Amino acid sequence: MSHFATRLHHAICQKKTSALVGLDPRFDLLPQEIIAAARASQTDKASVVAAAFEQFCLRVIDVVAPLVPAVKPQAAFFEEWGPAGMRALCNVIAAARKAGLIVICDAKRGDIGSTAEAYARGWLGGATPEYPWQADALTVNPYMGVDTLQPFVDVAVERGAGIYVLVRTSNSGSGVFQDRCSDDLPLYRHVANEVERLAEKTAEKTSTKGDGYGCVGAVVGATYPKELVELRACMPHAPLLVPGYGSQGGGAADVMAAFDSNGLGGLINSSRGINFAYQRSPYKEEFGETQWEAAIEAATHAMIKDLTWQ
Amino acid sequence: MSHFATRLHHAICQKKTSALVGLDPRFDLLPQEIIAAARASQTDKASVVAAAFEQFCLRVIDVVAPLVPAVKPQAAFFEEWGPAGMRALCNVIAAARKAGLIVICDAKRGDIGSTAEAYARGWLGGATPEYPWQADALTVNPYMGVDTLQPFVDVAVERGAGIYVLVRTSNSGSGVFQDRCSDDLPLYRHVANEVERLAEKTAEKTSTKGDGYGCVGAVVGATYPKELVELRACMPHAPLLVPGYGSQGGGAADVMAAFDSNGLGGLINSSRGINFAYQRSPYKEEFGETQWEAAIEAATHAMIKDLTWQ
Repeated sequence: MSHFATRLHHAICQKKTSALVGLDPRFDLLPQEIIAAARASQTDKASVVAAAFEQFCLRVIDVVAPLVPAVKPQAAFFEEWGPAGMRALCNVIAAARKAGLIVICDAKRGDIGSTAEAYARGWLGGATPEYPWQADALTVNPYMGVDTLQPFVDVAVERGAGIYVLVRTSNSGSGVFQDRCSDDLPLYRHVANEVERLAEKTAEKTSTKGDGYGCVGAVVGATYPKELVELRACMPHAPLLVPGYGSQGGGAADVMAAFDSNGLGGLINSSRGINFAYQRSPYKEEFGETQWEAAIEAATHAMIKDLTWQ
Repeated sequence: MSHFATRLHHAICQKKTSALVGLDPRFDLLPQEIIAAARASQTDKASVVAAAFEQFCLRVIDVVAPLVPAVKPQAAFFEEWGPAGMRALCNVIAAARKAGLIVICDAKRGDIGSTAEAYARGWLGGATPEYPWQADALTVNPYMGVDTLQPFVDVAVERGAGIYVLVRTSNSGSGVFQDRCSDDLPLYRHVANEVERLAEKTAEKTSTKGDGYGCVGAVVGATYPKELVELRACMPHAPLLVPGYGSQGGGAADVMAAFDSNGLGGLINSSRGINFAYQRSPYKEEFGETQWEAAIEAATHAMIKDLTWQ
């Protein structure tokens, strides 16, 4: 059973980038050709949207699979459309894995005891994608306590999967609770300390490929660069997932702190900036809607270049 | 558009109880007749489990619909089985609403901005069940900040739906982060203050039926009775959802603090204790597996009696 960090770092080294492409389909932003095809094949609104999301994401996957190590489907956009949307999400994850991509499902789940176990068993496919949703990793919310993270950790260890615990999120109001200070540290640092403890415990000691990282990582927003530096230092065994680059305002200089001295240990996510590149300059002018896939390809190349630090 | 608190309290007054039945199907605990029927109608494991869950929950709903105001399906148990499980969850929610029950989907969602909006639009059916999952209310995780609750609040107000924000959860390790003290208050009190602010803002002033409650409520575990007293007092506009009664160890005396002087403002949840009553004394001896529905009915009546305070 391959360890999550080993698989992740193998993929990063192979693609020579830590760029992570978010899959955030939104119906009103999709290219017309995708919408038209979905309308021709389905009748009710939810099925039309689900078919369009699936087709759009499969084509994004085709474009980015040769370029990046991983993708991050956002569960909420699929879930909004009911069971049809969930079926589309399942198909998108399967297609991404088949294309050789690491799949981090961004679903921010969390619950107690056997309920957390159910989420973990359902979502985490890990090294052998035989389980329902078959994701390589899942984002998880820590509010309910460390005991509620443990079932996710156990399943992740067992299956060669990973989890990313929310530590410092990228939204402007994230500090309302996360910055609250107790014992001289903000809440997010207490969460980070627990994440580091779990990460160290699950680190693969025998492998050089995983470089000492555990299967428990942390979500740290690019919109708080100072905290990113601090959190990279206090969680040396935790792979980081950094949202907030691109559309949310974080730049390449802001996210470099996510990486260790080997350039590993972090994934930088861009969703809207890649998915809907054809709607923004310079891709809008160069490609336009008819060449939306070429726009995605160019935006992905630009992101990879932007994140190259040598 | 009826306000969530008005609808909730109307249902509580009509049924004369605040008992909430959780729908927590677990395959290894289901009656054999349910499993056999599902095996006869489906082939792959996920479809068998999903069919069994749906059938089991529909029959639980038939038994409890005349007795209690609301049910709380636990999304995780359905989600574990992939798209087939999600389809079953959707059918279960629809059946519960059709039976006149208020449906609180326990999915503990949470995310930023437009992503939170997608969850809210998908899950909250509210007064008019025309949306994909059509729940009356949804449980929500506050870790990411108050700005991430707002999209749920906005959709809830618009649709006559409700949300229950995790404040103090019932698990033994809930204090690890929730008890961390800043500005002389534990984290859960800071969350409670924000919930109260949102609850007061969304309270229906013109109605006497809602009794001044908002559409933003709080989850407070019965396993922490002292905190329940404190939290009822500091969130006078928030309807409470109290898990932890029964199987998790909370007794009737522990949960009485959830109610206001009119006996309103709280819902007390029991899941396993009701769902699988046929496996525990005295129902096991009295009914056994063949009369599992009679066991559920008797256990529900016993819970209602236990919660009657006059």
